[in-house]
Amino acid sequence: MAKQKMVEQITSMDVDFAKWYTDVVKKAELADYSGVKGCMIIRPYGYAIWENIQKDLDRRFKELGVENVYMPMFIPESLLQKEKDHVEGFAPECAVVTIGGQNQLSERLIVRPTSETLFCEHFKDIIHSYRDLPKNYNQWVNVCRWEKTTRPFLRTSEFLWQEGHTMHETEEEAREMTIRMLKVYEDFYRETLAIPAVVGRKTEKEKFAGAKETYTIEPMMHNGVALQGGTTHYFGDGFAKAFDITYTARDNTVKYPHQTSWGVSTRMIGAIIMTHGDDNGLILPPNVAPIQVVVIPVQQHKEGVLEKATEITNALKAAGLRVKMDDSDNSPGWKYSEYEMKGVPVRLEVGPRDIENNSCVLVSRVSRNKNFVSLDNIADQVKDMLQSVHTELVERANRNRAEKTNDAHSYEEFLQIAEEKPGFIRAMWCGETECEEKLKDITGGVKSRCIPFHEENLSETCVCCGKKAKHMVIWGRQY
Amino acid sequence: MAKQKMVEQITSMDVDFAKWYTDVVKKAELADYSGVKGCMIIRPYGYAIWENIQKDLDRRFKELGVENVYMPMFIPESLLQKEKDHVEGFAPECAVVTIGGQNQLSERLIVRPTSETLFCEHFKDIIHSYRDLPKNYNQWVNVCRWEKTTRPFLRTSEFLWQEGHTMHETEEEAREMTIRMLKVYEDFYRETLAIPAVVGRKTEKEKFAGAKETYTIEPMMHNGVALQGGTTHYFGDGFAKAFDITYTARDNTVKYPHQTSWGVSTRMIGAIIMTHGDDNGLILPPNVAPIQVVVIPVQQHKEGVLEKATEITNALKAAGLRVKMDDSDNSPGWKYSEYEMKGVPVRLEVGPRDIENNSCVLVSRVSRNKNFVSLDNIADQVKDMLQSVHTELVERANRNRAEKTNDAHSYEEFLQIAEEKPGFIRAMWCGETECEEKLKDITGGVKSRCIPFHEENLSETCVCCGKKAKHMVIWGRQY
Repeated sequence: MAKQKMVEQITSMDVDFAKWYTDVVKKAELADYSGVKGCMIIRPYGYAIWENIQKDLDRRFKELGVENVYMPMFIPESLLQKEKDHVEGFAPECAVVTIGGQNQLSERLIVRPTSETLFCEHFKDIIHSYRDLPKNYNQWVNVCRWEKTTRPFLRTSEFLWQEGHTMHETEEEAREMTIRMLKVYEDFYRETLAIPAVVGRKTEKEKFAGAKETYTIEPMMHNGVALQGGTTHYFGDGFAKAFDITYTARDNTVKYPHQTSWGVSTRMIGAIIMTHGDDNGLILPPNVAPIQVVVIPVQQHKEGVLEKATEITNALKAAGLRVKMDDSDNSPGWKYSEYEMKGVPVRLEVGPRDIENNSCVLVSRVSRNKNFVSLDNIADQVKDMLQSVHTELVERANRNRAEKTNDAHSYEEFLQIAEEKPGFIRAMWCGETECEEKLKDITGGVKSRCIPFHEENLSETCVCCGKKAKHMVIWGRQY
Repeated sequence: MAKQKMVEQITSMDVDFAKWYTDVVKKAELADYSGVKGCMIIRPYGYAIWENIQKDLDRRFKELGVENVYMPMFIPESLLQKEKDHVEGFAPECAVVTIGGQNQLSERLIVRPTSETLFCEHFKDIIHSYRDLPKNYNQWVNVCRWEKTTRPFLRTSEFLWQEGHTMHETEEEAREMTIRMLKVYEDFYRETLAIPAVVGRKTEKEKFAGAKETYTIEPMMHNGVALQGGTTHYFGDGFAKAFDITYTARDNTVKYPHQTSWGVSTRMIGAIIMTHGDDNGLILPPNVAPIQVVVIPVQQHKEGVLEKATEITNALKAAGLRVKMDDSDNSPGWKYSEYEMKGVPVRLEVGPRDIENNSCVLVSRVSRNKNFVSLDNIADQVKDMLQSVHTELVERANRNRAEKTNDAHSYEEFLQIAEEKPGFIRAMWCGETECEEKLKDITGGVKSRCIPFHEENLSETCVCCGKKAKHMVIWGRQY
């Protein structure tokens, strides 16, 4: 009964995916709306996912010699204006502080939408010689990009992210760093979030404001819509010139250093929800799940049940797992739906009959099958199931993407797929922005996601204009 | 020679303590000024200290069942105004966003100076029954309080901190929480930062805006000036009433919950610098030092030296220590001063003669004595020295405070001590704000720090007005 009730509270994915998404965010207590327009409250369960994400990514960064710093949250307007393309890209979405300490400010301050300019100002102070290079910096901060329509985790006026900013002696080294960090993101998405994704280069039109090259990771959500999951940028020496950052090179000449930046954000939590979730709620990848296994005592009032459940819980904790035992007064059925809703990867049920048999029941959140297993080596068995949940999630996401990726060989075919089939379209492209814009306009929003690292030659001509094709592009609608 | 040069670059503490402080901040590369008025850049070495602080404190919070969340950085002006005392306290130091997405905002947004109001708005949504209590929340965020004169870590318009916000069923439970968190801070200061400190209750005049009771931890800096190192507040149900937060109690009546908040900030790094540092630079408490031991190979070009130094470094790392080996081309003398400046607690020197003897030299940053020790069990010996550095730092700080604390039994004595002796003054007080203000004005800034938990009865009368004394107060100048 209780279960029935819980499930009814979520809209089905197939009925209304957007509504299903907000239902899950709200009911799994990941985030909440706030009285501040466009800003969200990240609740304990959602924030715990973010902390696990941070811990894992931060370790990956530090292993590559990246150091964390903290830059001011405000950018003087004149500083933001130093790099022309950059300010044009961000000016429309800025929040502006005009009053400080009850006085009108002589110079307006922008709440950072990103911090390239602040890093450049600092780099100018601390970079003088090739011995000062590379500088591999990162910061974990909040940023603000004013948004009209918002959705928790996916698009909010304020969000949390990390932004890496690095300076290098040569173009080659900086370009390598740009690719290396994309690879870090790709590995992190697959190994930690269980999200396999397309990676590639953005077209000229879709590049970051001020970048010479932008790379992207583009996971596909369950409904076939793409989510730009993270980007890395190679800036060349454009900012260095605008900010007059120079260094004395090994050959004693004065040179401009080459720059990169790269970032991922709390959007990743949106990607987790929409890649793995189902009509019963959230499904969390085991590596970031705040609770990896929930222990539920059945007929807990009977002698020995709570003791055994506690013993199992302690054994799992001792094995380094994140465990919760729920011995509240709610019925087992209510608890089953509750932790399914919350996406806990593995459920362990133990009752009087199980205890007699020295066994318990393990249930995977993905397959939802019951497995009767021995209590001997229970921690290892739970770990095995967590590993198989991870593998299954990756495989499911791969299958979903394969099913929802179609090749278009002609303009008509492109339009037909865009109209009828949600997902990615693979199609050849001449390299002209005009064709990208035309395809986007006529389809009502199908944009180039990226030129993937592994291109195939689907035909010789651009699917839009018929001229000679330069690249295979992956196209799709996006969040 | 190199050493001479390094040391000359720092102003002596006794000559100009303020200048010494900024010299250390700058030369140890903890922080840097930015082009943003009143805001600082926290550099990698400074930020690594902050990360170690966060890790330790966050563990202490979580052990007490505190959960991390994230609230928006903006507070609508009307929300800040809901609690009268609170807004009066913060209005003068607000940064105000008036423009968003190129439009004048219909309601101005305050960049959070603290987040009681946002938490209350959220609590109203999520607290309905006694079953929803307590709520023990915390967030690690940046806040903004506009300042005219700033000093890195001590007073900046933006700073980083944690702010805990909790709601409880009863006054008693909330009051207990307020004291418990003060105790967490006290333990953390002593056990982790090696800073013993006075703890106590703020007078009416010095309380936090909107609080019924404010508790404080007040370490004394090397020069005798106090630093308010952290505060915990009991709010009663004042905010709950202003925000209409109610819950159904166990007896089925509708009640207002009782609230606390508590916070410490990047100021703590200022406290570390000014409590432990000396004329050779920083001295870092081992538990938060980014580098706990620096390994310096002597005559490193000689056969076997670098190999042995590397071997030792790896052994120390394997023992869980934070180690750096410096095999750069700089002279050992230069390296010695460099890592003294950076406050590395233990230096390990190893050269050809040491290797012959299966020994090395350990130097404590505090005593600076050379200790010849065997390379057998080197990790244990380094750990022992780190422990003794910690103990010595605590003892030194205790001695400094004892030496710089004086009792005043009369008005004249109070003025004389205030004039002649830097440090704390212990003196009796009648409980009237008027007397506090008079003492502050006439001494040019000696304020009540707190009514310590352990009061002594120094006399029967107030040192200022001669009326009956209510409390022993600790007085002092502050940062």
